[in-house]
Amino acid sequence: MKVGILTIGNELTSGKTQDTNSSYIARELQVQGWPVAVMMSVGDDDAAIKEALDHILSLADALIVTGGLGPTSDDITTAAIGRAFGRKLYTDETCLKHIREIFSQFRLKWTDNNAKQALFPEGAETIFNPVGTAWGFALRVEGKVIAVIPGVPAEVKIMLPEGVIPFFRKAFPQAAQHVAARIFKVFGISEAGVDKLLSDIDFKGLGVEIGFYPNFPEIHVQLKVRTSTEAEARARLARAEAEVTDRLRDNIFGHDEQTLEGVVAALLTERGLTLAVAESLTGGLITDRLTDIPGSSKFFERGCVTYSNQSKTDLLGVPEEMLREHGAVSEQTAVRMAEGVRALAGTNLGLSTTGIAGPDGGTAEKPVGTVYVALSDGKDTFCRHYDTFRWDRRRIKVLSSQAALLMVKRYLTGEIRHGQ
Amino acid sequence: MKVGILTIGNELTSGKTQDTNSSYIARELQVQGWPVAVMMSVGDDDAAIKEALDHILSLADALIVTGGLGPTSDDITTAAIGRAFGRKLYTDETCLKHIREIFSQFRLKWTDNNAKQALFPEGAETIFNPVGTAWGFALRVEGKVIAVIPGVPAEVKIMLPEGVIPFFRKAFPQAAQHVAARIFKVFGISEAGVDKLLSDIDFKGLGVEIGFYPNFPEIHVQLKVRTSTEAEARARLARAEAEVTDRLRDNIFGHDEQTLEGVVAALLTERGLTLAVAESLTGGLITDRLTDIPGSSKFFERGCVTYSNQSKTDLLGVPEEMLREHGAVSEQTAVRMAEGVRALAGTNLGLSTTGIAGPDGGTAEKPVGTVYVALSDGKDTFCRHYDTFRWDRRRIKVLSSQAALLMVKRYLTGEIRHGQ
Repeated sequence: MKVGILTIGNELTSGKTQDTNSSYIARELQVQGWPVAVMMSVGDDDAAIKEALDHILSLADALIVTGGLGPTSDDITTAAIGRAFGRKLYTDETCLKHIREIFSQFRLKWTDNNAKQALFPEGAETIFNPVGTAWGFALRVEGKVIAVIPGVPAEVKIMLPEGVIPFFRKAFPQAAQHVAARIFKVFGISEAGVDKLLSDIDFKGLGVEIGFYPNFPEIHVQLKVRTSTEAEARARLARAEAEVTDRLRDNIFGHDEQTLEGVVAALLTERGLTLAVAESLTGGLITDRLTDIPGSSKFFERGCVTYSNQSKTDLLGVPEEMLREHGAVSEQTAVRMAEGVRALAGTNLGLSTTGIAGPDGGTAEKPVGTVYVALSDGKDTFCRHYDTFRWDRRRIKVLSSQAALLMVKRYLTGEIRHGQ
Repeated sequence: MKVGILTIGNELTSGKTQDTNSSYIARELQVQGWPVAVMMSVGDDDAAIKEALDHILSLADALIVTGGLGPTSDDITTAAIGRAFGRKLYTDETCLKHIREIFSQFRLKWTDNNAKQALFPEGAETIFNPVGTAWGFALRVEGKVIAVIPGVPAEVKIMLPEGVIPFFRKAFPQAAQHVAARIFKVFGISEAGVDKLLSDIDFKGLGVEIGFYPNFPEIHVQLKVRTSTEAEARARLARAEAEVTDRLRDNIFGHDEQTLEGVVAALLTERGLTLAVAESLTGGLITDRLTDIPGSSKFFERGCVTYSNQSKTDLLGVPEEMLREHGAVSEQTAVRMAEGVRALAGTNLGLSTTGIAGPDGGTAEKPVGTVYVALSDGKDTFCRHYDTFRWDRRRIKVLSSQAALLMVKRYLTGEIRHGQ
């Protein structure tokens, strides 16, 4: 079953808004095993919409349309689709009641143009919107199906899996399979490196598809299974998961929707441990990431962004002599920073980074991209030196923050051990 | 002159890669005054490419194609376009020589498939690629023009303005106008607020188009002029710029490609002033932004991410009594944090933030989104209280960091004065 995607809105064809829906929808359709024949965007224009519908339906069995379902006069998607297929519009009373309820709940003033959002082409099935007033609809036209949902990305992310995909599965039962998917989030090896580590696994034999999605600075490895029964899909996925986990081991820091900072935050909270951070080249990025996690004040005590040598001495107790002798970018300084911030904050753990983010400041001995990361638990201090971080200043900061957070994660899961 | 955009690649139709080229190209075309009739994406498939070319050329006078110009076997754009219009391919010797030079310069091993990148359809004009081996080309077909460039966004951003747009202007001289554009970067008022402040300006009378581009947390206001002479375009733009500047005043923090942190960094560097930062709810985001600017070590001395009360006392000298009496989220604490970090770091300026990022921790008196920002210069301390920051934790952090950086910018440009 081939699917087409049509996104509608003048904000797209003028370049005012980046279309993120098409890419999201394509990825979800791919998980279902339904290839995307074509993706199109047109403005809020009756003729352009009709041309696009005709073209896509000549190439695909099903079509997903987003955008143009608002109450204002420039939102013409429903009317244009009605006209394109010769369907009059009717008012869906359940939808109208729902919209009126939202208005009354939020004490908004009702104006008659809002009733427009309860209009649908004859023969359409409505698709409920649990987070807004713009309901969608699905329509069967000459053996093909068209599903229309609003263009707000947060609404697409609910109405596609809950409304559109179930409708398509029902409309094309022969194309509906049980789907199971799993994403492995990997850092520390290249895409080619991941590919090589997994090269001896017979994914075809296991009945599983594998895909790589580089997502700087991470690689996301997706496994997908589509079979006729749910139990079989789960069983195949579990076998492939075990193989992948065995090959990639501690290069995997999380799965599916997890983030590295979220994994670290959960581990620290779970164990009742506290953390203080001393950052030089990462400049606050590590603590910014950690404090994005709700409840981070439970484990995060303080961060010191010690950019100057004076601040390294004042806030972390790094001896001036050490800075003179070894330099601010050195293993000695990184270790002393982690130990110093831990001791002064009175936390269980102290984490530090120091390095050269560039574009200036590199030397032959310590080029741009030279980075030290250290973690102290009061007993031992682990330090790692990186010299492979390249590209621009921002990317060197992001790679360094990722390496530092991964060190905490590995320590907490026992992948880094005392005496190593 | 209507233009169509076609992006080609299996990575697009599988959802693996988000297409950012279409949106960028649409915006650049809009600046030229050339409306986009349709945007399409298809996979690396001969038939799909032909269908798309035919459809777009039935709707538009010109077509921009990106993607599929690499040396590997899945890159078929040039061959598919040649077949679609019955043009054989020829080798461009200048291009071939350039590719060979790049290989020799980077000491890469030459393989014969690389010669494929020097193949072009008969009648094509080549478009030079100054940053890679994938040259583009432009082709005239039945009174229409097609320009083809690689899909790497960094290459599109050079080859579109330097190669494609000049070619189109030459091919459609009646559609080529002198264009002048200016972006105002605004923070602190809503899109509706900006609209209202500018409502008395007669942009039509001035011969200038205005557009609003919300770019969280900023609003970008773009002025565009297209006329027959360059002098006239510049003159009209200058008149409109003066009006907009007069209305929006210090809500404008920068222009065109400037960032707020870049503007603050340039002002501090220019004046030889130094800054220290004490962050609570922003968690390091302010110093992360500042340290993204090359050379930030010239003005940035230290940051203290004082998440715990203990760290506010230890690192900034905020009295425990003050925290008990007024709370960590209070004007008193914000002021003391800014004064403390300035005094202890010995910098010219001290900046601080404290607030409630949520989702928990809000009270009736101090709900989620309550934020204080303070700036001390050793003589005066300015403090501002915000209670309109809403949405999620991340957005409250971003809004707060923006408000704090804007306060520094306004102080440095004299928009905040002593005794106010």
